[in-house]
Amino acid sequence: MPRPIVTLTTDFGDADYYVGAMKGVVLDVCPDTEIIDLCHNVLTYDILDAAFTIAQSYRWFPLRTVHVVVVDPGVGTQRRPLIVSGDRHYFVGPDNGVFSFIYPEQEKLTVYHITGDHYFHQPVSNTFHARDVFASVAGWLAKGVEARQFGDPIEDYVKLTVPKPQALNEKSWKGMVLKVDRFGNVITNIAAADCPALFAEPTPPFKLSAGGKEITKLVPNYAEGGQGEIFALLGSSGYLEVATNRGGAAQLLNLNRGADVTLQLG
Amino acid sequence: MPRPIVTLTTDFGDADYYVGAMKGVVLDVCPDTEIIDLCHNVLTYDILDAAFTIAQSYRWFPLRTVHVVVVDPGVGTQRRPLIVSGDRHYFVGPDNGVFSFIYPEQEKLTVYHITGDHYFHQPVSNTFHARDVFASVAGWLAKGVEARQFGDPIEDYVKLTVPKPQALNEKSWKGMVLKVDRFGNVITNIAAADCPALFAEPTPPFKLSAGGKEITKLVPNYAEGGQGEIFALLGSSGYLEVATNRGGAAQLLNLNRGADVTLQLG
Amino acid sequence: MPRPIVTLTTDFGDADYYVGAMKGVVLDVCPDTEIIDLCHNVLTYDILDAAFTIAQSYRWFPLRTVHVVVVDPGVGTQRRPLIVSGDRHYFVGPDNGVFSFIYPEQEKLTVYHITGDHYFHQPVSNTFHARDVFASVAGWLAKGVEARQFGDPIEDYVKLTVPKPQALNEKSWKGMVLKVDRFGNVITNIAAADCPALFAEPTPPFKLSAGGKEITKLVPNYAEGGQGEIFALLGSSGYLEVATNRGGAAQLLNLNRGADVTLQLG
Repeated sequence: MPRPIVTLTTDFGDADYYVGAMKGVVLDVCPDTEIIDLCHNVLTYDILDAAFTIAQSYRWFPLRTVHVVVVDPGVGTQRRPLIVSGDRHYFVGPDNGVFSFIYPEQEKLTVYHITGDHYFHQPVSNTFHARDVFASVAGWLAKGVEARQFGDPIEDYVKLTVPKPQALNEKSWKGMVLKVDRFGNVITNIAAADCPALFAEPTPPFKLSAGGKEITKLVPNYAEGGQGEIFALLGSSGYLEVATNRGGAAQLLNLNRGADVTLQLG
Repeated sequence: MPRPIVTLTTDFGDADYYVGAMKGVVLDVCPDTEIIDLCHNVLTYDILDAAFTIAQSYRWFPLRTVHVVVVDPGVGTQRRPLIVSGDRHYFVGPDNGVFSFIYPEQEKLTVYHITGDHYFHQPVSNTFHARDVFASVAGWLAKGVEARQFGDPIEDYVKLTVPKPQALNEKSWKGMVLKVDRFGNVITNIAAADCPALFAEPTPPFKLSAGGKEITKLVPNYAEGGQGEIFALLGSSGYLEVATNRGGAAQLLNLNRGADVTLQLG
Repeated sequence: MPRPIVTLTTDFGDADYYVGAMKGVVLDVCPDTEIIDLCHNVLTYDILDAAFTIAQSYRWFPLRTVHVVVVDPGVGTQRRPLIVSGDRHYFVGPDNGVFSFIYPEQEKLTVYHITGDHYFHQPVSNTFHARDVFASVAGWLAKGVEARQFGDPIEDYVKLTVPKPQALNEKSWKGMVLKVDRFGNVITNIAAADCPALFAEPTPPFKLSAGGKEITKLVPNYAEGGQGEIFALLGSSGYLEVATNRGGAAQLLNLNRGADVTLQLG
């Protein structure tokens, strides 16, 4: 039997005790767990950044992995704690939209409002449910307790509007910057499926406007572009990216998350 | 049998090979160990920050966890290597005070001066005992060697004065900032037990002076405060915090570790 | 049987989903793997920094550890994916020189060009071979597939020139800065073996010129130096370092990677 896996995605950074305390609670409940750090540098309080991060990571993990996701500015208020039971994985976190990218990708989906507080680490603090609620529940899930034991299914969980590109006409779309990565690659919200014609062979003429520049070149990988040249490519996340070869396109174009981009074919 | 757990807390940061080398040594001695990163961004050379970090993390882990803590500016000098055997856990690190917050919390406490250098990774370097001494000893502890095998118990281990708030009179205390976290929350050294009256229901009138501001509002959690408003709350670490809702109180008040705060009741 | 170990060294940083996705792929192939983060903050695109980092870390790990190293600006081009089978360990990564420090340290060395794409995670993206190729291959190696199953041995793998100090005459050497660590310690490329006379007892008179300063003191450990004083020592990596006691020598001397240093005996 492989060991249960619990992954952690938070905005807790790497200089505090918060992540360590969470890991302790998981292991105290289920000492056999393999704990996997996914990312602890989600932008602080940024639910959409957390939603994007877990959406790009979870699918690669084995069946029955438990993913804990905590960006939780509403900790201690009435916002509900959730277990999301999807096709192959479990997700544990606050009901504030952090799972918004995941819900539409599941064929079988049940969302439970966690109410069984005997699965919490008592006493529960007002400000650290990552430790007292979510880590503890993840430990019990890892240990084999069934999701439905933790509370009742709900339907009215929070679904944030995942920003989709807007078709301006048959040949142009208005999108936005979803994420800037460590390399300064600018990940837009324009997916391959939003504009399949762009990815035909040979590449049709196009204009991608971003940060005041017009990009007209599509390359298959970063190294195909000239140094300093700004180009587009289909990134590994499935979205159109603006990038340069070994340089930060985001910095060169002064592009941040949320910035507008426009794609025009022909 | 669950696998042995070894946690790591250091000031080695995340861009060097130091943490990787430590992990290798632990696993080479005891390949079955689960290695847990607690925190590698303790403030450099800052023994008190390490002491606070491990004190807030260790308690959540299962029985017999081995916690390695290395902030060690005196590496290579006569400062002694220690194993601290507490109520439920082991701690391994230099005798410079990094365990100062932990000693008073143990009912059963034995501190061993490690002298058995056959448990070290030979040859021992002058500047990297985290790898050659502490990681290796942690591996042998994880493998089941008893703490007393590594050396003799000592009584004169280094205990730093953990800063306690000072009672100015029956209704006022002078404290200090113990830690600023990633969110800019200001964790003071005033524990709930230092001033139980403050946490009575309803909250009595009080004035918390910090960074030139007077804070007079106590809330149960961050989201209860208005945006931009500075308030106090009892944090998950058990200490009084100065915070704002989704903003950095430390930055707003220009408060750093060590700064004075004063609490006045009535 | 201990569990298989896979270590990860990348320039992916800690705020993106890339590392998480890699971990998922490894675990999906071989759920029993213990995944160890070595370092994800290698300088971006910096093959030599990755080469140094893995060279300083790998040796401490147990027999048969699989080390994945990905700094891969040429991802998606014709650069080959490799398995390096050394004396005790396996290495997986791109054929761009990241293993340059490791090749000369192996007595038995076979380098395989990975061509068996049934070991890849399909479909393989153009820009994220860390996930689709290297993590997947590492998982299969961890699962016990033999290295020769992945492709044919090659001899013409990329070996970068590891910068060695240059002997100017019998008593002086020109070296360079290989790495600046978190503490501002300046690690040069002058190894103990390059100049054994320097490390004789008593230390001979010497002059180490770096950043416009002349350093004439050699100490056994950081704490032996006076605060603010710049000195030399033999670091735990086996190289001559320029350092101060609890301060950043690199910052004080304005020394960065690649800067010249000169050592003169007598």
